Amino acid sequence: MKIVLLGAGNVATHLGLRLIQTGVELLQVYSRTASSATELGKLLGVPHCSDLKQLDKTADIYIYSIKDSALSEVISGVNIPDAIHLHTAGSIPMDIFGGFAHHYGVLYPLQTFSKAKPLDFSQIPLFLEANDDHTAGILTQLATRLSSVQYYLSSEKRKKIHLSAVFACNFTNYMYRIADDIVSETGLPFDVLQPLITETADKIRYLTPTEAQTGPAVRNDEPTMLTHINLLKENENALKTYITLSEQIKELYKK
Amino acid sequence: MKIVLLGAGNVATHLGLRLIQTGVELLQVYSRTASSATELGKLLGVPHCSDLKQLDKTADIYIYSIKDSALSEVISGVNIPDAIHLHTAGSIPMDIFGGFAHHYGVLYPLQTFSKAKPLDFSQIPLFLEANDDHTAGILTQLATRLSSVQYYLSSEKRKKIHLSAVFACNFTNYMYRIADDIVSETGLPFDVLQPLITETADKIRYLTPTEAQTGPAVRNDEPTMLTHINLLKENENALKTYITLSEQIKELYKK
Repeated sequence: MKIVLLGAGNVATHLGLRLIQTGVELLQVYSRTASSATELGKLLGVPHCSDLKQLDKTADIYIYSIKDSALSEVISGVNIPDAIHLHTAGSIPMDIFGGFAHHYGVLYPLQTFSKAKPLDFSQIPLFLEANDDHTAGILTQLATRLSSVQYYLSSEKRKKIHLSAVFACNFTNYMYRIADDIVSETGLPFDVLQPLITETADKIRYLTPTEAQTGPAVRNDEPTMLTHINLLKENENALKTYITLSEQIKELYKK
Repeated sequence: MKIVLLGAGNVATHLGLRLIQTGVELLQVYSRTASSATELGKLLGVPHCSDLKQLDKTADIYIYSIKDSALSEVISGVNIPDAIHLHTAGSIPMDIFGGFAHHYGVLYPLQTFSKAKPLDFSQIPLFLEANDDHTAGILTQLATRLSSVQYYLSSEKRKKIHLSAVFACNFTNYMYRIADDIVSETGLPFDVLQPLITETADKIRYLTPTEAQTGPAVRNDEPTMLTHINLLKENENALKTYITLSEQIKELYKK
């Protein structure tokens, strides 16, 4: 299984490391930014290029881990119609490849990646889609090497999974940020919140989020909510968030 | 160190288990609800009562793990002015004991507790406050047995820590709930989000929440945000939350 990886960002870096780890033949990495291509090529110990004209044309699979806004331009610049072409984006339909390739699909890893933070790729859920049986067969083989968790899913459903991740990851992290701002006003380090954050994430392995909901809003504890609103007078964003989310939680748990 | 524990909810249950574990002499548990008193008494293997008249008056320390709205009534019903009296609430000032006791303080454990879910109490940050040196001395001894992480903090700063926990825990869990709703529309189990949720919580041990922020809003990816807003047309709460939080994140990361 010979692969060329296009992209050198967070997803491409972790995917590249995992590809090497599972022993597939990674022929080359490409990035429009020469320094990024060099960096990832060195990290993975494989050739790199930053010009699509130098792309290795002998691979079985071309994987595009490129930001959404650049995907279409890069795809149209690669003219290898008989290979399999895959992108890794949550919100982009598979049909972006239509007209540029015969065999194509999607391999979307549901995770938050940062270059500097190692993680266990083998447990990451992979959402797969393929335009024909030939592609599906090879995509399944590839995905099985990468992770033990895989689902075939339509582009429409993949969009919803991506949207759910915005809440579960991006907005959750924003809640951590507001909490960090408030803690810093006491002079204590953000670390004091880590056991609570870890336990909150762990708890929903045993309870549904609906069962796990606690706090002043769920018990309609008006005095505490008023205390909190007063404390947030100087922090417009946190105040708006507090009121919006508390109203929704109150309403949902009203008996 | 002889202790009586008032309350039989989530905090009281975990605190009671930890007190027994650390070998303090837990004389009795009290709850206004007879069945709760019986249940916790049995779990901990100590006497229980549901009438304040039957409260053991020989303890050194009385710990009130009672919901905020009932705290004042229970405190005023206990007339043992020479013992040390502690509550465990984040948002209630220490002075709630004023007039009812000479020695009093606060022992606030920053964690989310559910009876059914075991956890490691020894790593929970404890926020302490005491009205005099005598109380502070004994409170420090007690806290040191319970956890390795302790901070003395004023009632005002403790309120802020409690407020930060609403964001880091209660609102975070609500983000999980919205994500759960969206995932369920695809027919997939909520479990597919667990690796992402775990990694999001773990990541901020290495990066600040400001550095860890990812997603369409932080990169001002308008097409993806529009796609998401369209997907949320039928889910009023999620839509309002999406717009509110995305606007704030966009604004914060604007260059």
